[in-house]
Amino acid sequence: MERITVTLGERSYPITIASGLFEEPASFLPLKAGDQAMLVTNETLAPIYLERVKHALEQTGVRVDQVILPDGEQYKTLSVMEQVFTALLQKPHGRDTTLIALGGGVIGDLTGFAAACYQRGVRFIQVPTTLLSQVDSSVGGKTAVNHPLGKNMIGAFYQPASVVVDIDCLKTLPARELASGLAEVIKYGIILDGEFFVWLEEHLDELLALDNKAMAYCIRRCCELKAEVVAADEKEQGVRALLNLGHTYGHAIEAEMGYGNWLHGEAVAAGMMMAAETARRLGQFSEADVARVRTLIARAGLPVTGPKSMTPESYLPHMMRDKKVLAGELRLVLPTAIGQSEVRSGVAHEIVLAAIADCRG
Amino acid sequence: MERITVTLGERSYPITIASGLFEEPASFLPLKAGDQAMLVTNETLAPIYLERVKHALEQTGVRVDQVILPDGEQYKTLSVMEQVFTALLQKPHGRDTTLIALGGGVIGDLTGFAAACYQRGVRFIQVPTTLLSQVDSSVGGKTAVNHPLGKNMIGAFYQPASVVVDIDCLKTLPARELASGLAEVIKYGIILDGEFFVWLEEHLDELLALDNKAMAYCIRRCCELKAEVVAADEKEQGVRALLNLGHTYGHAIEAEMGYGNWLHGEAVAAGMMMAAETARRLGQFSEADVARVRTLIARAGLPVTGPKSMTPESYLPHMMRDKKVLAGELRLVLPTAIGQSEVRSGVAHEIVLAAIADCRG
Repeated sequence: MERITVTLGERSYPITIASGLFEEPASFLPLKAGDQAMLVTNETLAPIYLERVKHALEQTGVRVDQVILPDGEQYKTLSVMEQVFTALLQKPHGRDTTLIALGGGVIGDLTGFAAACYQRGVRFIQVPTTLLSQVDSSVGGKTAVNHPLGKNMIGAFYQPASVVVDIDCLKTLPARELASGLAEVIKYGIILDGEFFVWLEEHLDELLALDNKAMAYCIRRCCELKAEVVAADEKEQGVRALLNLGHTYGHAIEAEMGYGNWLHGEAVAAGMMMAAETARRLGQFSEADVARVRTLIARAGLPVTGPKSMTPESYLPHMMRDKKVLAGELRLVLPTAIGQSEVRSGVAHEIVLAAIADCRG
Repeated sequence: MERITVTLGERSYPITIASGLFEEPASFLPLKAGDQAMLVTNETLAPIYLERVKHALEQTGVRVDQVILPDGEQYKTLSVMEQVFTALLQKPHGRDTTLIALGGGVIGDLTGFAAACYQRGVRFIQVPTTLLSQVDSSVGGKTAVNHPLGKNMIGAFYQPASVVVDIDCLKTLPARELASGLAEVIKYGIILDGEFFVWLEEHLDELLALDNKAMAYCIRRCCELKAEVVAADEKEQGVRALLNLGHTYGHAIEAEMGYGNWLHGEAVAAGMMMAAETARRLGQFSEADVARVRTLIARAGLPVTGPKSMTPESYLPHMMRDKKVLAGELRLVLPTAIGQSEVRSGVAHEIVLAAIADCRG
């Protein structure tokens, strides 16, 4: 078992990573006998995991209710979140309840935001079941739902009480979703850790084959990197913005193509290529490094170009709604080397458009 | 001009109380030239105040947009809040925008919660236009919307950057709304400040006649009391719960009768009588003090009984959804004297039911 702590003073919390955690009642600390909890999951995952997790919790003496939501990014909305509140109020659950997010990023983001809002804040536990949520969205307390005009536009910074990562979940994950998670894994290498990028170049095939040892190391390293960034900048006023590499471009793809048609990691992969090309055109990132990024992304089974149907111009209105925009000016995360990156404002729109054109499908 | 500070470390903020503030560009600090802001108000208030406030802001060089919501507690919902997000995203407004809540408690609660959630948190300014919001809901950072199954069940603790109280607003306030505000004023006297209760007994007629000097003192004293409580217990883990006197009973009335049919202060007034009777039946509050509370509430033009149509039993399911409920047990705010109160759990339901029956209309 691997355990990391996200250091945030009184709100510090553990991330536990291992195989077989769902069979262990102790995995779901700090829940204890007599506590009340609401499991939130989706229709796809409920038949696979719900009874196992409920059984483990009930063995501990926790009273568990459940709410099962439809599956998909298009359901990450305020109105679907209201179903969680309805379930909580019907029982009813008090301010001392705990929400458990059992699922991928959609369930984690929505449940975390519901926990932030229900009675102005109740405890929640992240139980991420996809690689993407295990290495990224379950750690760090960013919670949100989407608005028709922009992704993750409505949310809160709200930290979980614990994150429980059972890597056995990846065995039932569709290949496309596994690849989507690898996009965020590769992102950590590009923005923060050149050695980890090299490790990925050497071990990507083991990750694709779900080798237990390689996968546990990979998830642990990503969580460590994310935990460091979050501890340094919980509310994204500085370094945390680097975790957005590829996301400003990628969110435009997701918004334009309709949420759920392009997976988040796929859009981020194409977006990272656009960021790399933007950096190259600015003279701060070499052609050789662009090629290394492209090769690794392609080996992971991820797109290195955006959708054919989207003109470069069609990205901009979406990009201008990015949360990093300040005083009407775009701010982009751009690599300066493999393992190093910066937030840059004042990049000419023509360069951004040309870089997007470089990556048109 | 009266100015009080709510002391919350980095998140401390001023409350400014005076007549004529809407004509003063400087009232809306910390907004400055070049800032972007979104005024949120309702259909009733827009014709009276919108242009004046916009004009003052535009004189400062603030770029102001507006969103006008329907008027009424029944519109304090997630779906109406989504209209605010739509307006913000259509312009678009970035993370550096400021929301301005121009209105009563409904506008303040909804706009504050929208500010807490938009892009995971933007700045907001409270500009309360009703007595109730001036003395209570605009101070302290409790924001929320309602759910069909319970009032204020979805929200956040989120502090404004400033509160601007122009007492001239009270001149256009319907008498029933003025009385509703006086319910919260009387509440402060009962729970925290016996001297202020005596002052109210002596000056209630001046308040009902909107005497400027008496009203400014009254609002200032209520804000001071609230600011002290909030500074001591921002997230309602202790003393802040006292501010809920009458609310557990009152929320049951509002929920059962349909939000908006009974005004919040009217329901709280009847609820305070039920709390007083509960305390009397427990032997901790004298009959003479019950009578003083009843007399003052009645003089303010407020109900001292609940709706005839509600049986005592019909209150309980609503009361059990109260946010103070812990481990399935009701916790009630009860007076122990005029100017002193406590949170008490373990009160037998029969006593609660009998006290409600004492106050049946």
